[in-house]
Amino acid sequence: MSKTPSNPKGTRDFLPSNLSKRNYILDVIKKNFLLFGFLEIETPALEKNSTLLGKYGNEGDRLIFKILNSGEKVKKANISAFQANNLSEFTNSISEKGLRYDLTVPLARFVAQHQNDLIFPFKRFQIQNVWRADRPQHGRFQEFTQCDADIIGTNSILQEIELIKLYDTIFSELGFNDIIFKINHRGILNALANYIGIVDKLTDFISIIDKIDKIGLNKVIDELNEIIDRSSVSKLTSLLGKEKISIKKLKILFKESIEGVKGIEEINTIMEFICENNCINNEIEFDLTLARGLNYYTGTIIEVTSKSNNAIGSLGGGGRYDDLTSFFNLKNMSGVGISFGLDRIFLQMEEQKMFPEHLDNNFDIIVINFGISYIKKLYPLIDSLRKEGKKIDIYPDEVKLNKQFSYANKHNVNYAIIMGENEFKKNQVVIKNMIDGSQSNYSIEEVNSLLF
Amino acid sequence: MSKTPSNPKGTRDFLPSNLSKRNYILDVIKKNFLLFGFLEIETPALEKNSTLLGKYGNEGDRLIFKILNSGEKVKKANISAFQANNLSEFTNSISEKGLRYDLTVPLARFVAQHQNDLIFPFKRFQIQNVWRADRPQHGRFQEFTQCDADIIGTNSILQEIELIKLYDTIFSELGFNDIIFKINHRGILNALANYIGIVDKLTDFISIIDKIDKIGLNKVIDELNEIIDRSSVSKLTSLLGKEKISIKKLKILFKESIEGVKGIEEINTIMEFICENNCINNEIEFDLTLARGLNYYTGTIIEVTSKSNNAIGSLGGGGRYDDLTSFFNLKNMSGVGISFGLDRIFLQMEEQKMFPEHLDNNFDIIVINFGISYIKKLYPLIDSLRKEGKKIDIYPDEVKLNKQFSYANKHNVNYAIIMGENEFKKNQVVIKNMIDGSQSNYSIEEVNSLLF
Repeated sequence: MSKTPSNPKGTRDFLPSNLSKRNYILDVIKKNFLLFGFLEIETPALEKNSTLLGKYGNEGDRLIFKILNSGEKVKKANISAFQANNLSEFTNSISEKGLRYDLTVPLARFVAQHQNDLIFPFKRFQIQNVWRADRPQHGRFQEFTQCDADIIGTNSILQEIELIKLYDTIFSELGFNDIIFKINHRGILNALANYIGIVDKLTDFISIIDKIDKIGLNKVIDELNEIIDRSSVSKLTSLLGKEKISIKKLKILFKESIEGVKGIEEINTIMEFICENNCINNEIEFDLTLARGLNYYTGTIIEVTSKSNNAIGSLGGGGRYDDLTSFFNLKNMSGVGISFGLDRIFLQMEEQKMFPEHLDNNFDIIVINFGISYIKKLYPLIDSLRKEGKKIDIYPDEVKLNKQFSYANKHNVNYAIIMGENEFKKNQVVIKNMIDGSQSNYSIEEVNSLLF
Repeated sequence: MSKTPSNPKGTRDFLPSNLSKRNYILDVIKKNFLLFGFLEIETPALEKNSTLLGKYGNEGDRLIFKILNSGEKVKKANISAFQANNLSEFTNSISEKGLRYDLTVPLARFVAQHQNDLIFPFKRFQIQNVWRADRPQHGRFQEFTQCDADIIGTNSILQEIELIKLYDTIFSELGFNDIIFKINHRGILNALANYIGIVDKLTDFISIIDKIDKIGLNKVIDELNEIIDRSSVSKLTSLLGKEKISIKKLKILFKESIEGVKGIEEINTIMEFICENNCINNEIEFDLTLARGLNYYTGTIIEVTSKSNNAIGSLGGGGRYDDLTSFFNLKNMSGVGISFGLDRIFLQMEEQKMFPEHLDNNFDIIVINFGISYIKKLYPLIDSLRKEGKKIDIYPDEVKLNKQFSYANKHNVNYAIIMGENEFKKNQVVIKNMIDGSQSNYSIEEVNSLLF
């Protein structure tokens, strides 16, 4: 125990200055979730392995933190599986639970489990941590916060519109005015795959196209050349090559595809509603190359990018999934949802100094401590100011003034209440403005929250 | 996957109706933490086993959820330790991290680790979940929320006073008026043990005395008879037997004990400050039998009990600990803190119907859906009402009216905005009061938040 202790790699301690900024973002998100009629739920950090495994692909399964069975249960370890190098069977013999990997599978589990107690269509939001056993590296954490809003049990396109409006409201309130909401539709991507004749390679196609923002069109074409023939690629590049293709033109190209037509109609409805109503402060744009990797999406997909900070990646994303709860035997529950990339939003706001200044003030007023009898006399005043909403710290100890003021300055406090011997006798206090150094005397009775 | 899925035993899903009540309690707690100058921190759910183990006694170590090392690291399993039935060595070979067991040890780790970045005295609060591999049973959970406020780095008795005032402010705001804050002091308990001649059995003595509220004085005496001699027990019963002993009388009895005298002085200072100032709405009481099991306490101890609901146990507790950070090599950091028993507070508030009624309203206004063109026309109004702070849900689908109203009633919505074909033509809406059924027509321009 001689070394300095530390938190595990890939995890973070949040000191007050950082946490108040994170909470500022989360408060804006949460307030608007509620204004849009979403209700909050929470699920446990621990889920059964049977709930988690098989939902995120092999790579995902590997990244789930598994909890060791406790006490005597460890005795059931399957040693022969271990010796046969069958690690997953060995693991299964000593672990029944794991840590939540995202908020989507727990939502599907929650909806299936509590379907009789929920009001459908079910609009929920959830802001909780998730854990992934990724290799810790700069900007990638093993424990991080997800903020999701979803509507389950309706295929109404109004939900997509409300979610984009919700995104815009939140990003606007946080001070972002350079956001582009990119939208596309899985039905359109399917029609595209059909049009260029690569329906059998749809998943690969989507995962390659998904990288276009990171690696650029040319490298995407190189990769596509490896899995599809030259004529398909050239059909594709003619669509993607020059300026962005319009929805109108696609409507003609994909007119034979039922899901393509449906996708285009839905995108049209969204765009018309939002643009004709002049609904949003930021921009919305149809982007045929937007794919989003997750394979549970079936309809509209959406991604939030910042024009001024493309390198940071998307600040959020979401889409429609028609069949997520069927993992848990609940059919016909179309869902659509969005998610906020809290860490990236924080990073951009920090870089561009977008946080309000008042977050730097840890509290409003410091009461200088001349001894407990002085504090006793001031205590009714302190009480009433707190009741009026002033954040007040009393310096804990009776120590030299400069030490107390230095503490106050480190906390960016605006005002000090000072009652020394003279003031004590006269039932007065000095209120000192810690910013400009000015100060005035008041009788105790005169002091109220308006002076600060 | 044919069975209905479920969350693990001992964990909980929170549905919106419960969560909004839990959050109401947490919001009141958090607001007052901030008003009293406490700053929020967060630590990761995952801590190194080296941080966690050895801090909570053998029983505690057993109850820590351990995380299985991921990927290839499992190959380092110490099979010979397993075969020799040395389960803890086996466990250590496949686990390096565990889940946070409380917020106190992580706080000590945090303060030692970040001592150069913190402002001392350090006043922090923390509201996060903790995990314990207890046997799941009614009212005891494996995952639950702790809410702690602590001050580290001062031995000023003013902190105890502020913490009691903070407790009282929070419980009063939540509607409790039957609370007794019981206080005692470890110095006084030590003097007591000295007085009855059982200093060598102090830990056992404290853990037995601690049970007095649960099992009563007679059973406590039975248990004490097993570890100490009859004359000590009778000396003790003469102190505890009749009405509660006064601080004044103890001052005489314990005058030879330095720590007894110090303890009595501190309790006196607290009681005088609070009672002479008429500081609190609830009651405070010195209780010589209050012990609090945790062995890191060294000074004042405090417990929150409800007169009307003794069976529920304490609603919170805390105390002073002089040496917690020395686990992590940081000496001379006296700390004092309190904690809130969220689940018990919730239970009592639920039983006694103490939650404000407005928590039942999931949102303020429902917009009845007659089709997307109607919603499009209403959208600027919806937008401006949300900006004025009204929580509005638009019914997702264009379905029969009674289905939409039934949804609204299940959500306890107060008002509906209705625009049917007639209203659409006249640029009007109907606002229907969902409580009394009354309704009126307004032009769209007339509608503002004051109507609701």
